[in-house]
Amino acid sequence: MLTKATALACAVGTAQAFLAPMAPAALRTSTFAPTNVAVSTSSKAAARWQALQMKLGDADEPIVVIGVAADSGCGKSTFMRRLTNIFGGSTVGPLGGGFGAPGGWETNTLVSDLTTVICLDDYHLNDRGGRKVSGRTALHTAEQRFDLMAEQLAALKRGDSVKKPIYNHVNGTLDEPEEIKPTPIIIIEGLHPFVDQRVRDLLDFTIYLDISDEIKFAWKIQRDMLERGHSLESIQASIEARKPDFDAYIAPQRAQADVVLQVLPTQLVPDDTEGKILRTRLIQKEGVANFDPAYLFDEGSSITWVPCGRKLTCSFPGIKFAYGPDVFFDNEVSVLEMDGQFDNLQELIYVESHLSNIGTKFYGELTQNILKLSDSPGSNNGTGFFQSVIALKLREVYERITSSKGAAVAK
Amino acid sequence: MLTKATALACAVGTAQAFLAPMAPAALRTSTFAPTNVAVSTSSKAAARWQALQMKLGDADEPIVVIGVAADSGCGKSTFMRRLTNIFGGSTVGPLGGGFGAPGGWETNTLVSDLTTVICLDDYHLNDRGGRKVSGRTALHTAEQRFDLMAEQLAALKRGDSVKKPIYNHVNGTLDEPEEIKPTPIIIIEGLHPFVDQRVRDLLDFTIYLDISDEIKFAWKIQRDMLERGHSLESIQASIEARKPDFDAYIAPQRAQADVVLQVLPTQLVPDDTEGKILRTRLIQKEGVANFDPAYLFDEGSSITWVPCGRKLTCSFPGIKFAYGPDVFFDNEVSVLEMDGQFDNLQELIYVESHLSNIGTKFYGELTQNILKLSDSPGSNNGTGFFQSVIALKLREVYERITSSKGAAVAK
Repeated sequence: MLTKATALACAVGTAQAFLAPMAPAALRTSTFAPTNVAVSTSSKAAARWQALQMKLGDADEPIVVIGVAADSGCGKSTFMRRLTNIFGGSTVGPLGGGFGAPGGWETNTLVSDLTTVICLDDYHLNDRGGRKVSGRTALHTAEQRFDLMAEQLAALKRGDSVKKPIYNHVNGTLDEPEEIKPTPIIIIEGLHPFVDQRVRDLLDFTIYLDISDEIKFAWKIQRDMLERGHSLESIQASIEARKPDFDAYIAPQRAQADVVLQVLPTQLVPDDTEGKILRTRLIQKEGVANFDPAYLFDEGSSITWVPCGRKLTCSFPGIKFAYGPDVFFDNEVSVLEMDGQFDNLQELIYVESHLSNIGTKFYGELTQNILKLSDSPGSNNGTGFFQSVIALKLREVYERITSSKGAAVAK
Repeated sequence: MLTKATALACAVGTAQAFLAPMAPAALRTSTFAPTNVAVSTSSKAAARWQALQMKLGDADEPIVVIGVAADSGCGKSTFMRRLTNIFGGSTVGPLGGGFGAPGGWETNTLVSDLTTVICLDDYHLNDRGGRKVSGRTALHTAEQRFDLMAEQLAALKRGDSVKKPIYNHVNGTLDEPEEIKPTPIIIIEGLHPFVDQRVRDLLDFTIYLDISDEIKFAWKIQRDMLERGHSLESIQASIEARKPDFDAYIAPQRAQADVVLQVLPTQLVPDDTEGKILRTRLIQKEGVANFDPAYLFDEGSSITWVPCGRKLTCSFPGIKFAYGPDVFFDNEVSVLEMDGQFDNLQELIYVESHLSNIGTKFYGELTQNILKLSDSPGSNNGTGFFQSVIALKLREVYERITSSKGAAVAK
């Protein structure tokens, strides 16, 4: 069995892409092929699964399915690691080896002890060549196999294994299917998790990662222009080309999400275009089963908070939090917002101490989880902070569902 | 002995002027002559004083002296009543009857069981006629008898009685002096409490009531133009005429105050000129002996708070609080701010529950005190709210000083 230290060392190798939503397929796929991943053998995996079943109690335990929508497609391994940290699983890696995927390293599926993350790109209708014929982008809903997606997710939720197709991001081809076995938590992530009503009805909790156009652009400039020498015009053109389909087929799913994590330019620095300091907003829908929105100081009030007074000294441009009720796509929501970044641990724990309903089991658990992954992208800003909050809230949702099947069925 | 109900009924008759700082002398003086004031006899007063001495313990108990600076001159009977409510005294009224003032009703001095409020206008150098000769306004520091003020305040603080002059606001004359006996708390209020260093050194706590020019103007318009038919030009002229001396001799004292209560136009209604909805700021100096600034949610941070979310429904334009560190006349301060007004009790107690260091002895005491005087001016806005906070803090200052003479001496 892997020690925790080894597992974390492995995990570091797989975690880069959550904050690089525009990473091309080749780059993203490479994150699934770290050289130092320790592959479990079949028997180890079986033993682990058995132990988990015992740990989780009843084998009829409901399987909790979570949907994550994001432009990045796949590769949210940082988020996956934050989840694994909190759920207590000890390994994170690509499906393969003992789990019976044919190609092994070409899978898009990530697994840990408790969770399976399925990339919805695997349900593309056509390969890259096919899309040249159809004339549609991969963003188009007509390019997804929703029937199969719904059927296989339903099977997994029932506890059955499925043979899921694989979309090869390097070649743009559809490879031979791999076997997916159900785990207590199944996460589907990709471009269209909330488009099909049947798929949506299978989801116990839904998250949309919403990177604003300004931040997408700033990040793309940083990588494609400054690091790879592309022209500003070509970057602008590639974004503009993608935008109509994105707005038509992806963005409307924001209305369906229980939680939207928005990433926006900072408002602390006037006219900031660098996209290095981020304003992040956790938009939490009211009235969602098994979910009570996190809040700052006083539930239901509107609050701004700059915790850089006499208690903390923050370097320019500081940190600003906000919280309050709002309406988002006609839904009542509570919004928790963070602008700026953390300079040190002291600030993290101080902020945690003033938040409520964050799903922690002990004081400091949020801070501890962020620190464990302090090298991961976004750990010093709201993306990491709110990812960790979401991970804690997902654990809460999971535990509420599994401790009360009635509640899960009622959803 | 007066019953509490009678005392409160009396007090209602004397309480109008705190929020009418521009009230002319005649109007102000009339508030000192309610027809239903029950006058204590000499023997009753002596018995009460004796009882108080016992209640307060050691007769060597320090006498606590508080300075209140305000443009209104005298007549802060609402504030006095808020203090009396909190300190537990049962009668408030003009000095007179058994206390030996010659004219009785012409005194400017207010007394309760525990407190004496001395109006500093009584230390005017010249009467109205004399100022016509000197060519100076009553705002001029050269028109005050600071030597006598310092000498008499020092005597009172030592526990000695004094023969204090009386300035007659009706006639503008200097009347025959009245005898002032020391009480456990002595408040001097008027135009120049912090100008003279000797007087200032005798003060245990200092408060400045700072009505902004806009609000002064709005209130004067309301009263002098709409109610009395004066012209806008004459009102403007009278304000302009007074402003140079005010700015030269009164306003600079703000730098000396431990607490400044600012009254400003609301920011909730764009371009409001009515002055009916107020923004009030409690500017609290840091590092003052026996005084810890009140704060909202998180000491030392910068916070805004609109408590009209899902928990409270506020009518337009709502209520907004703010809190944070600032610098005021080169001093470190903590500012607590309230914009808007309360619609009901629920809001008051809710706000109280989120404030800290407000000097209450039990949860709800602040709300209770405001409600007791709910008919008084400002009870539904920040003037009444912060006056009550100041009253609670003064009790705290008083109790800290009297429970530790060392601390008082160190001041």
